[in-house]
Amino acid sequence: MRILLTVTYDGTDFCGYQIQPDKRTVEQTLEESLEKAVGSRVKTIASGRTDSGVHALSQKVHFDIDADIPPEKFAAAINAFLPKDVKILKSEKVADDFSARYSAKEKTYRYSVVLSKIDEPLLLRYAVAVKFPVNVEKMKEAAKVIEGTHDFKAFCASGSSVKDTVRTVKSIKIVKKGRKIDFFVTGNGFLYNMVRIIAGTLISAGEGKTDVKDIESAFLTGNRDKLGKTMPSEGLCLFSVKYKI
Amino acid sequence: MRILLTVTYDGTDFCGYQIQPDKRTVEQTLEESLEKAVGSRVKTIASGRTDSGVHALSQKVHFDIDADIPPEKFAAAINAFLPKDVKILKSEKVADDFSARYSAKEKTYRYSVVLSKIDEPLLLRYAVAVKFPVNVEKMKEAAKVIEGTHDFKAFCASGSSVKDTVRTVKSIKIVKKGRKIDFFVTGNGFLYNMVRIIAGTLISAGEGKTDVKDIESAFLTGNRDKLGKTMPSEGLCLFSVKYKI
Repeated sequence: MRILLTVTYDGTDFCGYQIQPDKRTVEQTLEESLEKAVGSRVKTIASGRTDSGVHALSQKVHFDIDADIPPEKFAAAINAFLPKDVKILKSEKVADDFSARYSAKEKTYRYSVVLSKIDEPLLLRYAVAVKFPVNVEKMKEAAKVIEGTHDFKAFCASGSSVKDTVRTVKSIKIVKKGRKIDFFVTGNGFLYNMVRIIAGTLISAGEGKTDVKDIESAFLTGNRDKLGKTMPSEGLCLFSVKYKI
Repeated sequence: MRILLTVTYDGTDFCGYQIQPDKRTVEQTLEESLEKAVGSRVKTIASGRTDSGVHALSQKVHFDIDADIPPEKFAAAINAFLPKDVKILKSEKVADDFSARYSAKEKTYRYSVVLSKIDEPLLLRYAVAVKFPVNVEKMKEAAKVIEGTHDFKAFCASGSSVKDTVRTVKSIKIVKKGRKIDFFVTGNGFLYNMVRIIAGTLISAGEGKTDVKDIESAFLTGNRDKLGKTMPSEGLCLFSVKYKI
């Protein structure tokens, strides 16, 4: 049977999701604990990788197994072996042709910042400090221009080998609570560092350094010069993966 | 002149506030950075110590110095040398007879829990999971009984050498938001582990294991048997220190 896991992790001490030799990764940690729980090594497939230091509230991972274990019991069985920075929230049976990766219809990432001139320790494990005043309305204007289907070449880390850089950002929601601002970016696929560059561009727009015309121009030219910087990994969190819309 | 600092720290990687040989403590880290900022070693006095793993949103610390530096500039000067898990929020000049320790009128500690059967990594750096259902009204009833002036001997870690165990808990506020519950405990002084035992007792009351009579009896007998357990350090945070009421 095919089991789908909902996985959450604090990415701080992981070198990203994907297995790499001699590095502590979420994928390897998960597969090692799964092996201890079921007695044999099982290959897992995630909805996608996350970079070093990036967190997940709800990553999705599937694997196939012949075992006489009720599907919902895998969560506790694997959690018993997982370290405290990664846990399974839920395990469930899915159809044999369901794929955590290929069946995904959309993903939402959350990027979190805190308005503070000081790098406050208790606020910044899962967010980044923004030290200059920002205008939230200008951020929302910029978000409206980024939403939609565009050539996001200018929003992709340099050196990426992807050829087709057209993507669709379905929505960007900006939620401000006190000094905290969360950007929820939803799309059907993202280029390398795309969400972190979108977050940097929204902040740059809020600070008055990037305007709507700069973003429109970046879509046309593929040139990143007037966009914001790539924001650090600790503010980014894979918030949800949807399989039905 | 005498300078008062407002200090915040993530206690996870500190062996508590107070200096101890060969241990990483907040006090030593702070004094070393202060020394780098002003060029000589200066003794600091905090409002009180916090235990290993306990956080602070607003610890208060004073020191005396003859230096031609505007009082409000010490914060940034010291922050430049501090590691990322401790920072100064504010520096200000106070009267020469003001003491961060002896002038303190009351302190508020916050204890945070999350209602979850799973130890969710992204929620539990600054809170502890409560895995059984709790009745918040029963917690509030228990809090009302704990408030006031009592002999808190039963709420003190065993082995403590303090003789006078009478203390006044001015208020306990219980704030529930979604799955998170914060207990704000305010008093003019606390015994060793007292807040963590109060938090454990409130949870035990919420779970129906400790009732109002058990708490009243513990005040009379000094016996801890029916109270809750000492909750772990990571849920505890020194929230504020007040010098005027």
